[in-house]
Amino acid sequence: VRPGSTAEVAAVVRACAAAGVAMVPQGGNTGLVGGAVAAGQLIINLGRMNNIREVDAADFTMTVEAGAVLADVQAAAEVANRLFPLSLAAEGSCQIGGNLATNAGGTGVLRYGNMRELTLGLEVVLPSGEVWDGLRRLRKDNTGYDLKHMFIGGEGTLGIITAAVLKLFPLSVSSATAFVGLPDVASALAVFERLRPATGDQLTTFELLTRPCIDMVLAHIPGAVDPLSAPYQAYALIELTSSQQDSGLEQLLERELAAAIEAGTVADAVLARSQAQRASLWHLREAIPEAQKPEGASVKNDISVPVSKVAEFIARAGTAVQQAVPGIRLVSFGHIGDGNIHFNLSQPVGADSAAFLARWDELTGLVSDVAESLGGSFSAEHGIGLVKRSDLARRREPVELALLRQVKQALDPRGLMNPGKMLVDEKPP
Amino acid sequence: VRPGSTAEVAAVVRACAAAGVAMVPQGGNTGLVGGAVAAGQLIINLGRMNNIREVDAADFTMTVEAGAVLADVQAAAEVANRLFPLSLAAEGSCQIGGNLATNAGGTGVLRYGNMRELTLGLEVVLPSGEVWDGLRRLRKDNTGYDLKHMFIGGEGTLGIITAAVLKLFPLSVSSATAFVGLPDVASALAVFERLRPATGDQLTTFELLTRPCIDMVLAHIPGAVDPLSAPYQAYALIELTSSQQDSGLEQLLERELAAAIEAGTVADAVLARSQAQRASLWHLREAIPEAQKPEGASVKNDISVPVSKVAEFIARAGTAVQQAVPGIRLVSFGHIGDGNIHFNLSQPVGADSAAFLARWDELTGLVSDVAESLGGSFSAEHGIGLVKRSDLARRREPVELALLRQVKQALDPRGLMNPGKMLVDEKPP
Repeated sequence: VRPGSTAEVAAVVRACAAAGVAMVPQGGNTGLVGGAVAAGQLIINLGRMNNIREVDAADFTMTVEAGAVLADVQAAAEVANRLFPLSLAAEGSCQIGGNLATNAGGTGVLRYGNMRELTLGLEVVLPSGEVWDGLRRLRKDNTGYDLKHMFIGGEGTLGIITAAVLKLFPLSVSSATAFVGLPDVASALAVFERLRPATGDQLTTFELLTRPCIDMVLAHIPGAVDPLSAPYQAYALIELTSSQQDSGLEQLLERELAAAIEAGTVADAVLARSQAQRASLWHLREAIPEAQKPEGASVKNDISVPVSKVAEFIARAGTAVQQAVPGIRLVSFGHIGDGNIHFNLSQPVGADSAAFLARWDELTGLVSDVAESLGGSFSAEHGIGLVKRSDLARRREPVELALLRQVKQALDPRGLMNPGKMLVDEKPP
Repeated sequence: VRPGSTAEVAAVVRACAAAGVAMVPQGGNTGLVGGAVAAGQLIINLGRMNNIREVDAADFTMTVEAGAVLADVQAAAEVANRLFPLSLAAEGSCQIGGNLATNAGGTGVLRYGNMRELTLGLEVVLPSGEVWDGLRRLRKDNTGYDLKHMFIGGEGTLGIITAAVLKLFPLSVSSATAFVGLPDVASALAVFERLRPATGDQLTTFELLTRPCIDMVLAHIPGAVDPLSAPYQAYALIELTSSQQDSGLEQLLERELAAAIEAGTVADAVLARSQAQRASLWHLREAIPEAQKPEGASVKNDISVPVSKVAEFIARAGTAVQQAVPGIRLVSFGHIGDGNIHFNLSQPVGADSAAFLARWDELTGLVSDVAESLGGSFSAEHGIGLVKRSDLARRREPVELALLRQVKQALDPRGLMNPGKMLVDEKPP
C-alpha cells in the first residue's frame, strides 16, 4: 500500500492491527541489510508522503515527511540559505524515513553527526495505529524519556515514522579540499589529530583511502587520474568548509599540510584550485565501489572502532583475512573521524567468485572479531536488518539483548512491525 | 549507601531487588526539581565513584565515573588539550551521573549540544542488579535500539548510570566576547540569525538579558558596572571561540556588529579587550540569580520554544502574568540559540512574599500555557523530578504518556527505581 498522509498510514496500521497482519515499512529501498524486504507481510511504502511541510530559516529547522528524498530535502534547505548536512551515496533516491529508521551516517558525520543528532522531533504511527505527535522543534526539552531515539535506528520494528523535524545549519559558502599522500595509515590519524584543532573544527571531511582503492579506480574509471606523482600506501581526502565568506580556509589548510610534511606525517599533497579539480578529487573517493566491481566478487564490511584504533584494526584485520584467503585484496576506505571503515575484500585475481562468496560469513566474522577486540562494532552505519541479525544475537551480551527485547515487547507486543528484522524472532507471527 | 565501584552498586541494587526496597540514585544534589530527593527509599549516592578512567586525546573521548564532578571532568580534558564543553552554574559540585540522568544543558548547547549529544556510551546498573556494559566509544554504531538514550534524561527511573564515555572537542584557544545593547528582544533574533552564518558557526554563546536583569545586578552586585552608556530594552552576551590560534575572531565579531548597528538591530556594543573585561561581562549574566534574591520572592520558569518564537513568547507571557499580578517584574534571560528562556518573575515591590509564592502554580501555568501554544516545552533543561510531574501528566497527550509508561514498565516492572519521579505513580511501592 502507498498511503499519502499520516491519517492514511494510521488507517492502514489500524486495519492491520485489527486483522493481525504484519507490516514492513519501506522507503527508498536503498538499504544494504534487507531491512525493508518483506516475506509475507504487507509493505507500507511511504514514497507518496514526500512533502516538505516547513522550512524555518530563523529557527534553523525544517519539517519534512518520511517519503521526501534526501536530495530534495537538501535542496529545500539550500533554497532557504541553510544546510541539511546528511550526505551519502544513495542521496538521490533514499528517503528521510529510511534515513531515520536506520540512523544514516555518511560523509558529514565527523562535523554534523548521524541522522540521530540531526533530528529534533518525530511523528510516528504506533503499532496500534495511534499517532504519536512528537514533532517538537526544540533544542532543549527535558520532559520524560526521549522517545524519538527508540524509533530512530529502530529499523521500523517499533512503529512507522511519518514525519520529522530536522536541524539545519548555515550554508557552506567557502571550502578547501586536499588530496594527501601518506606514508602509512597511522599517519592519517596523526594528520587528523593535527587538523581538527588547528582548523578550529572546520574539518568536514576526512576520508581514508588505501592504495588498492586508487589502483582499481585508475584501472576502471574512465578519466580518473592520480593527482600525485608517486604512489603511497594510504591517502586522505580532506575538506574544510565554512559559512563565512572570506574564511581563509585554503591558506589555513595549505599551511597545516606544509607543517605535516615537515613533521613527516604527510608525504605529498595537492589542493583543489577549482571546482572542477575539487570534483575530480572527490570522484576518486566516490568511484571506489564502482571500480571494485570489475575486479570480481567482493565481501563488504562496515565496521567501526575507536578513532585511535583505526590503524591497528586495518593491520590486524588484513592479516586475519590474508591468512584465511591468500591473495585476497584489501580495498579499505572510510571515514577516519568516525572510526568507520568499509573494510571491503576483493577476491584473489583469477579465483572462483562463487567459492569466494561462499566464505562471506567466515570473512566478515574474522573482520568483526578484530573490530570487537578493539571495542568496535560489526555494523557502523548500515544497521542490522535481516543480514546481520545473527551477528547481533551472537556478538552482544545477553543483558543487552534482553534490554532490546524488552523495548520491542513494550512497544510492539504483538510483533506486527517489521517482524524478523534486527532481532531474531522468538515466535514469528 | 555510598558504593565505591560498579560492582558495589550492583550488589546494593541486587540486595534491594531481593528485598523489594526502592532506591533513589543521587549525584551532586544540585537538581532543581527534586529528582534526587528520597522519601522512604534507600539513597544510593554515587559520589565516591569519581574516577576519570581514561582520556584518549587522539580519539577525542574520555571515560568517567558517575560521581566525577563536572569541573573535574572539564579539567581532566583540558590537561589533554581537549574541551569537554558542558558548562552550567553548578559545575563545581554537580556530577556527571546527574548531568546524564537529567540530560543537562547550560551555556554551551548552541554549539556543542546537550549532555545527550555529548555521550557515546554508558555503563548502567539495571533494576535487577545486572550491569549493562554499553561503554562503547564509537561515533557510529547501528546495532539495535540506542539504549543509552533511555537512561540519559531518564532521571534514574530506569537504572543507575555508573560510568560514561564522553565526546571531547579541540580546546578553545582564542575567543571574542561582546556585550550588546538591543532596541528590543526581536532584534536579538535578527542578530543571532546574522551571526550564526557570518561567523562560520563559531558562535558558542548567545545569551539574552532583559533590562530588569541588568537593573538588579547593578543594584545588588558589588562592583557591577553597565558597560554601555545608555540603557536598552534587551542585551545579548555574545562569544565566539576557536581552537585555531590566529582565528581573527575579534575583527570578525567587530565587523559583523558594525554591520548590525548599520542595519538597526544593534544599538550599541562593547567588545572585551582583556580577560578581566571578558570576566566582568560574563559576570553580568552569571550574577542575575544572585541579584534577584534581595528583590523578594521569585517564581522560576525554565521554558523552551522554537528559536524563531522567543520574542513572541516573552511578549505574550509577560502580558499574561502582568494581568494576573499587576506590578510583577519580569526578569527574563536565557539561551537564545536554544530557544530556552528562564522566564523568572519577581514579586511586585513591597508585596507579601508568601502570598506571591502561593500563586506559583498559577503563574508557572500561565507561562507554560503560552510556551505550549507556541510549540514549546514547560521544562527545557531542568527535567521533571517531583516538581513538574503534574505538568507532565497534564500537558502531554495520552498517547505519549502511555509510551513513557510502557518504557518504565518494560525496564523497571517492579517500580523500584526512583519511584514517584517523572511519572506519577499508579501504585507506589
